Amino acid sequence: MKLYDFHGSSSAFRVRIALNLKGISYHRIPVDLLAGDQLRHDYRSLNPMALVPALIDRARAYTESLAIIEYLDETHPRPPLLPESPEGRTRVRALALSIASGIQPLHTERTENFLADELSVPRNGVLQWCQHWVNTGMTAVEACLNSDAGTGKFCHGDSPTLADVVLVPQVYAAKRRFDMDLRRSHPTVWRIYQNCMVRSEFRNAAPSNRVTTD
Amino acid sequence: MKLYDFHGSSSAFRVRIALNLKGISYHRIPVDLLAGDQLRHDYRSLNPMALVPALIDRARAYTESLAIIEYLDETHPRPPLLPESPEGRTRVRALALSIASGIQPLHTERTENFLADELSVPRNGVLQWCQHWVNTGMTAVEACLNSDAGTGKFCHGDSPTLADVVLVPQVYAAKRRFDMDLRRSHPTVWRIYQNCMVRSEFRNAAPSNRVTTD
Repeated sequence: MKLYDFHGSSSAFRVRIALNLKGISYHRIPVDLLAGDQLRHDYRSLNPMALVPALIDRARAYTESLAIIEYLDETHPRPPLLPESPEGRTRVRALALSIASGIQPLHTERTENFLADELSVPRNGVLQWCQHWVNTGMTAVEACLNSDAGTGKFCHGDSPTLADVVLVPQVYAAKRRFDMDLRRSHPTVWRIYQNCMVRSEFRNAAPSNRVTTD
Repeated sequence: MKLYDFHGSSSAFRVRIALNLKGISYHRIPVDLLAGDQLRHDYRSLNPMALVPALIDRARAYTESLAIIEYLDETHPRPPLLPESPEGRTRVRALALSIASGIQPLHTERTENFLADELSVPRNGVLQWCQHWVNTGMTAVEACLNSDAGTGKFCHGDSPTLADVVLVPQVYAAKRRFDMDLRRSHPTVWRIYQNCMVRSEFRNAAPSNRVTTD
């Protein structure tokens, strides 16, 4: 498989984790979002959204990180990234979506640029915007995790699922991009993040690709 | 089933369509987002995200519209809202996510309020923000639809899928909330929207609940 990828993208980070958890080898093709590579005609023909990632498998291009991860889970079932029961699957998908739809789209490169360049929001206002949505969303995720007996070593039970695959890049971005330390404010989120980051599948997928959990 | 619902919410609109397509009867419980009902303690205990919708089935609460619709599709398989092949399923999920993650989260009540109240963005700037993301995202959706042989009467083939369930509320919001007429600018999107809105499952789920396709 080939992954059109940007090291700093949370969405691409999710897919790298999922590929690693599935034990699928892949070739990374960098798309430099800061240089505008995603807007080039040849890339837009693969992904009209002009976003990363895009995954190529058997000469077909797939987009949207959560759709790609469901595809990987359907075509490479072991180890599963969704529980067996509909109730469990729904809980895991809801946790993933609460981050992938509820938080991350609000603080992408393109949204930060639009706030600053088109709406003349000052730099500290842009940071306030990003921190607000991360804090609001992760506080809700913390409440979902610490109130449910389904939470284990990971978001759902004791094996990584789609929820962890999405949680980790969000916590990582909170720390590295928005200077937010969730350790005390979001202890369940933080515990699960640490449990993930001791595993090579998560750690090796990180933007820095360095051995670190904080 | 019980649906905690707000008539004007795009996410709740999606779930109402899916319930109608599945032929599932449900009881609507209004959560007035404009009055702040979603912030009340009793509602947050159901949905810590303080967003609508929440679906109650067999005494369990489910959140996040796309997770709810996958749940309905798994527990009530007929008619299916996802194709059979992994390739088709991934295309449909990607189209749905490109709207549900790529457009809609950027123009919710809470994001518009934060721009206006916390970042002092003037009213025309907030509208510019909403229109920009709808136009950018729907232009990409149009490109995905008009370039793929999988597109039929609906987004994927000739039966409604999850992609149509998500497309229709977005087009509806573009028209009603942001004064955007996609008829000429996004002809494939518009054609599919019309094909959906002649069906009672879609029309009866609309915020206005009136018989109209434009």
